[in-house]
Amino acid sequence: MSARGHRDAGAIVGIGATDFSRCSGRSELTLAVEASLAAIADAGLSVRDIDGIVKCDMDLVAHNDLAHALGLPELSYWGETGTGGGAPCGMVGQAIGAVLSGQADNVLVFRSINGRTGTRYGQGDGQGAERGGNGTYNEFFVPFGLSTPGQMWSLMARRHMIEFGTTQDQLGAIAVACRRRANANPSAQMHGREMTLDDYLASPPVTAPLRLFDYCIETDGACAIVVTSTERGRDLRQPPCVVRAVAQGVQAGMQPGVAFPTLMRDSITTMPSAVVARRLYERAGLGPEDIDVAQFYDCFTITALVQLEDYGFCKKGEGGPFAASGAIELDGSLPINTAGGHLSEGYIHGLNHIVEGVRQIRHVSTSQVAGAEVCLVTSGLPIASSALILTRGTR
Amino acid sequence: MSARGHRDAGAIVGIGATDFSRCSGRSELTLAVEASLAAIADAGLSVRDIDGIVKCDMDLVAHNDLAHALGLPELSYWGETGTGGGAPCGMVGQAIGAVLSGQADNVLVFRSINGRTGTRYGQGDGQGAERGGNGTYNEFFVPFGLSTPGQMWSLMARRHMIEFGTTQDQLGAIAVACRRRANANPSAQMHGREMTLDDYLASPPVTAPLRLFDYCIETDGACAIVVTSTERGRDLRQPPCVVRAVAQGVQAGMQPGVAFPTLMRDSITTMPSAVVARRLYERAGLGPEDIDVAQFYDCFTITALVQLEDYGFCKKGEGGPFAASGAIELDGSLPINTAGGHLSEGYIHGLNHIVEGVRQIRHVSTSQVAGAEVCLVTSGLPIASSALILTRGTR
Repeated sequence: MSARGHRDAGAIVGIGATDFSRCSGRSELTLAVEASLAAIADAGLSVRDIDGIVKCDMDLVAHNDLAHALGLPELSYWGETGTGGGAPCGMVGQAIGAVLSGQADNVLVFRSINGRTGTRYGQGDGQGAERGGNGTYNEFFVPFGLSTPGQMWSLMARRHMIEFGTTQDQLGAIAVACRRRANANPSAQMHGREMTLDDYLASPPVTAPLRLFDYCIETDGACAIVVTSTERGRDLRQPPCVVRAVAQGVQAGMQPGVAFPTLMRDSITTMPSAVVARRLYERAGLGPEDIDVAQFYDCFTITALVQLEDYGFCKKGEGGPFAASGAIELDGSLPINTAGGHLSEGYIHGLNHIVEGVRQIRHVSTSQVAGAEVCLVTSGLPIASSALILTRGTR
Repeated sequence: MSARGHRDAGAIVGIGATDFSRCSGRSELTLAVEASLAAIADAGLSVRDIDGIVKCDMDLVAHNDLAHALGLPELSYWGETGTGGGAPCGMVGQAIGAVLSGQADNVLVFRSINGRTGTRYGQGDGQGAERGGNGTYNEFFVPFGLSTPGQMWSLMARRHMIEFGTTQDQLGAIAVACRRRANANPSAQMHGREMTLDDYLASPPVTAPLRLFDYCIETDGACAIVVTSTERGRDLRQPPCVVRAVAQGVQAGMQPGVAFPTLMRDSITTMPSAVVARRLYERAGLGPEDIDVAQFYDCFTITALVQLEDYGFCKKGEGGPFAASGAIELDGSLPINTAGGHLSEGYIHGLNHIVEGVRQIRHVSTSQVAGAEVCLVTSGLPIASSALILTRGTR
């Protein structure tokens, strides 16, 4: 590697997750410890090998609360990034920066969330609704009743329909594909609950055109991964899952922490993901044609659909037909969200997508893409986002 | 440099600050923009050269609010770290990680705070006092009335007096030295307000043995610096101030965000700074004997005194006599806080110490240490802390 680049220099060597449920019955700290211990054991490391922790800015668990609960004697690196669901791939990028600059050897990256029994993001409490927008761009939206992510993304979905002729069936194709993957994954929250396109179409509109099954599920659970150098990873228990490249991206005027500016742009059907995609492919020296499988951040069906376009798998406006063509199914040209996605596996705010990306590269997914060598994982979409590409490296 | 280390690989190439006052009359965002533009201009860069921002976890200004206000088209890296005053040197470390791993070229690191007219940390509001400790270690302290930093550090000062015979005069020597430096610095908040040891001793006890002038001042203001690679820095306007090494450190059981666990340890007179010092010197390949000038995080006199010991300038327990010996004065063996410190320049939560460290290395401080080649800067102390060593490099 060059002194400055990180291509292939960092790797994910351990993954862990709790059960995903509507009621964990335990604290975010307990969940974080559980997922972290699983990831550390998976890597074949001991907790004392962990010397760095990177968290999501919205996580309620503090770095040192987790360090203390795990029994770490001390930490030599800690940091965080955001915003929320846009963070996970950026968290991996920060961990790689810490490792490559010699500030930590083995960095724990985690996300713990009681998304159903704790703070329910879907209700928009985080948007300052109770304060009428509170001096932010929200002032232009909240007083008019526009206060939840579902409301916001429904406008984007409607706009996509108007501009490009996208149909309800096409959105449904994404929900159905994710549900199929969840039904192959015993750990998915929606495992055992089959869903046809007719079931999807019969689900109630919540914020038309978005129906109940266009929404991701609310989940209590946690995920954790261990990041180290690819070189060190080669000596560990699992074959290292190499981070080919990582990128963050945000466009000016898209305020972290506030989703609504999304709606103030010339086009609300192109997102920061287009910026991230360009940067990521450039850093990776790869393009969409090299991707075998993708884990798209699917807080709603529409966000996955738009990313099919922004990451170059089809042209702008053609995400709907692409999704409905079968291309995103397991035997298609770009299987997506192979654990079930946020729509049907669980909503660990993007981090479970990285865990599933690693499973694909290890060839142990419950919906394994045969011979998968390269996996795209994305985080977030509305405001500030990040993405990474995982490979099997050159062992 | 080795592929993993960061020794001498990153540099601070621009510094900026607003005025420091008791009433800025403007928002934290406005202050952050002002300091950032000054730092960018100082580096000889344009705002469009900035592609990364690292902030303090307690800053009220969001990354992208600042990016937007500066007119940046986009950001390719953003992140944050903490806790609060322990963050600044760690923020530089994170920026260096981003630069060395190729995630950003020029990273803005800032801290903006209306510490007098906005949130007044000294009142302990951040400790959950109004909620009786709120499920944290604070539960063991707040209900008994122990709820402000001043109260906590007074216990540490008293303990230091009991264990080591430290005297009020010795604490006062630190306050007086900082005030002398502030009186040479027209930008210091306490400029023009001379103070003798008698003045110090006549000041009212606030939380005995800590008197009014053992406390840092409350400040409205902002500082910013620009971090890039040392290599790129050589082509810029200022001689690069090379970051020889940086380190973060926290001991298990010391909860970020909560100061009181400090008091739950076997010894409350040794802090995480001892851990950081060991790590920093090891990474730098330097020791206390190599340091020409130091900027110690002085939220209270006692924290600077303890760091004289923890960073190896004298033995544990001898910080008092060392401080009173004249060693910390401008003509002493270790001049400290040469802009006046948090005690008399202003309290920008640690970041103004890095700005002054750069001035010393550039040889432009208002209390310049003749021929200074190596400057130690520390951030925080009570819970999680960080530090770095600046040098003139090998131009």
